[in-house]
Amino acid sequence: MNGIKQPELMVDEDRLLIKKALEVVCGKWRLFILLHLAEKTRRYSELRRLLPDVSEKVLIQELKALVVLGVLEKESFNEVPPRVEYRLSERGKAVMPLLLQIKEIGRHFV
Amino acid sequence: MNGIKQPELMVDEDRLLIKKALEVVCGKWRLFILLHLAEKTRRYSELRRLLPDVSEKVLIQELKALVVLGVLEKESFNEVPPRVEYRLSERGKAVMPLLLQIKEIGRHFV
Repeated sequence: MNGIKQPELMVDEDRLLIKKALEVVCGKWRLFILLHLAEKTRRYSELRRLLPDVSEKVLIQELKALVVLGVLEKESFNEVPPRVEYRLSERGKAVMPLLLQIKEIGRHFV
Repeated sequence: MNGIKQPELMVDEDRLLIKKALEVVCGKWRLFILLHLAEKTRRYSELRRLLPDVSEKVLIQELKALVVLGVLEKESFNEVPPRVEYRLSERGKAVMPLLLQIKEIGRHFV
């Protein structure tokens, strides 16, 4: 092949990018969690307070998924009581402008 | 109130916009369906062919949801066999640039 993407290949690459984007964005609370971390690092307890509608189990699960995806970083401090903080990774910061734009889609349909 | 949004109110309005945006974008196949309609109107049978991994039941259900949301328009032609076409609504066209950008989020995490 001479470097020009065949439509099918391009579609496959698109499909992969879209699936990965949907992993970051979708799920009832992921975007809310990320937007609460847009400005600053936050403690787990702060996120719990900012997201009262989210159960502890779901919040922990979604934070873990976002860390595994590479969007967030988690830091644990060996203190009493133990302290855990979450922040955007470099890649998370890089996509934040795109994440903030997703809200604008909603403006057309309320 | 003097027109300046209180933080809580802004957060509520953001919450509503984000929820509505996630309705448009999320779901395993919605973004794929919309991107296949980005360039032109397509028949239902074409969408079936372009999305082989989607069951008939799910495709019909997702198309219906996108019509109800106001992102797509459906047109039925009284022919034999019957012909059904889908296209982006004006609001769907308006958000397509934002939808296309969502794919770029994925580029940071593959």
